[in-house]
Amino acid sequence: MKLRKDYILDRWVIISEKRGKRPHEFKKSKEKHKSKDKDCFFCPGNEELTPKEIYRRNDNKGKWKIRVIPNKFAAVDIKSKTKNKQKKHIKEINAYGYHEVLIETNKHNKQLWDLDEKEIAEVLEVYNLRIKELEKDKNIKYVTIFKNHGKEAGTSLVHSHSQIVAYNKIPKTIKDKLKASKKYKNCPYCKIIKKESKSKRKCFENNNFIAFAPFASRFNYEVWLMPKKHIKKLEQLDKKQTRDMAKILKKVLEKLKKINCSYNFYIHYAPGKTDLHLSLEICPRIAKWAGFETSTGDIINVIAPETAAKFYRKRD
Amino acid sequence: MKLRKDYILDRWVIISEKRGKRPHEFKKSKEKHKSKDKDCFFCPGNEELTPKEIYRRNDNKGKWKIRVIPNKFAAVDIKSKTKNKQKKHIKEINAYGYHEVLIETNKHNKQLWDLDEKEIAEVLEVYNLRIKELEKDKNIKYVTIFKNHGKEAGTSLVHSHSQIVAYNKIPKTIKDKLKASKKYKNCPYCKIIKKESKSKRKCFENNNFIAFAPFASRFNYEVWLMPKKHIKKLEQLDKKQTRDMAKILKKVLEKLKKINCSYNFYIHYAPGKTDLHLSLEICPRIAKWAGFETSTGDIINVIAPETAAKFYRKRD
Repeated sequence: MKLRKDYILDRWVIISEKRGKRPHEFKKSKEKHKSKDKDCFFCPGNEELTPKEIYRRNDNKGKWKIRVIPNKFAAVDIKSKTKNKQKKHIKEINAYGYHEVLIETNKHNKQLWDLDEKEIAEVLEVYNLRIKELEKDKNIKYVTIFKNHGKEAGTSLVHSHSQIVAYNKIPKTIKDKLKASKKYKNCPYCKIIKKESKSKRKCFENNNFIAFAPFASRFNYEVWLMPKKHIKKLEQLDKKQTRDMAKILKKVLEKLKKINCSYNFYIHYAPGKTDLHLSLEICPRIAKWAGFETSTGDIINVIAPETAAKFYRKRD
Repeated sequence: MKLRKDYILDRWVIISEKRGKRPHEFKKSKEKHKSKDKDCFFCPGNEELTPKEIYRRNDNKGKWKIRVIPNKFAAVDIKSKTKNKQKKHIKEINAYGYHEVLIETNKHNKQLWDLDEKEIAEVLEVYNLRIKELEKDKNIKYVTIFKNHGKEAGTSLVHSHSQIVAYNKIPKTIKDKLKASKKYKNCPYCKIIKKESKSKRKCFENNNFIAFAPFASRFNYEVWLMPKKHIKKLEQLDKKQTRDMAKILKKVLEKLKKINCSYNFYIHYAPGKTDLHLSLEICPRIAKWAGFETSTGDIINVIAPETAAKFYRKRD
């Protein structure tokens, strides 16, 4: 697996033909309404079908409720050891890292949006544990945590799960955010949060977190979740703050459940000793990025964030 | 319609709720195997159903073979005149411009890949005419030409067409390319073309054009078409060169037709007095960009460009 740079742009691609061998179609389970599907790799009873477990969290009956396993069709691995190419216009480095799957529930018929606040808070806690663990490898520059829900969001298996990719590069977007943040004396996001808490783009708010539709939303109904205090990493959140994060995430996801839409979300944090305000960004996948977006790098969005926020705030 | 900038990043979004009113589903014509569909807006006989025609090219019987019309669901318009917002972190300008549709053929059952070289060359000629015409408006900074083919590529109507968006901003990607090019003494793409003409990533070549799978391909089977000479704009191509471009585009599209895949393509040229090597970049839409791409700005591609080039070169 290789990380290749565009000829002249700071645009990087992981070439992973191994990952191409995973089942291409969205595997629609016939048993999706049952709590268990005997053919599902992620269901209890099929633990021996998955690669060796990395982590599990049990309930008080000794049964697992969250499991972390290696991704069988990884985009990065720790075996990538071929020599780097560094010719003019042809720059390639090893795509070194860890690609894991976090199974969010032992129930086949529950999606993340069906879990209760406490269960969602536990998923967030495990995200944090994995980031801390994976960052111990000094070659790892960032641990990206993301979720693909639904066909349009690129998921390949129905059983509710998140993915963790730890790799040897600061992601382009994090690099851009860190660079742009440095232009300000203080954290720009602390100011933005204050501003948005009084704007038409605010969706929800509780003691520790805010959810708002960002001013230049790229996706229909895009929402950002941010801690109100200047918190840089999940590990800085105490139990109560994590619970408030889960609470507000649940509120957003419940709205998306009502329209049954595919979505991605991901967590942006400050890697190493950098400074970046923690966020969880939810990107519903209703519209498709087409030729305009691919050509220009600019984006057309037909739902104004002010309209999106109204949708979230609406009492059903 | 507004062009909004991300709070801190150089990431721009056009908010166009009007465009959201277009039919959301891929309109599958029942008559797609017939040369004419009475319900199709783009078919001969229904000219009065479209907004006022901007341009037409006739065959020698006096019937149109290419038409350009305004896009009924435009992402930009020349009426956008509200005052710009320029507060801290909240930057918004008018999304001023022209959004047009180019109907590539009068036949309902022909796609661009079915047209012959001469017909494709004529489409390229009309692209050029529109760019030249639209650039006369001094507010226009760039005219992006792109095509969405198939559902996965975001098209909404079956009848073969391209889109033209002329707007008041240099697209992010063009800006990045221009900036990166300036780091080199001479055009980097002239060197890249020479290198790729001898690489495993070369697909096709003729007197004036080359097609290759770029080293850091973002899409499965991505291909770039570039003139071998340092040409910056479509208008610099003579008849023979345009024909060579059409010839090589046809060869690529024929391969995509065999696997019947959705694709986008777009043209990148040097706006104004800038310097950028002309390209037409074809992006098949087989895989979906999911949480990883959305989170990181880096991309996972499971088809190596060397594999892609082999697919194109293979004699069937």
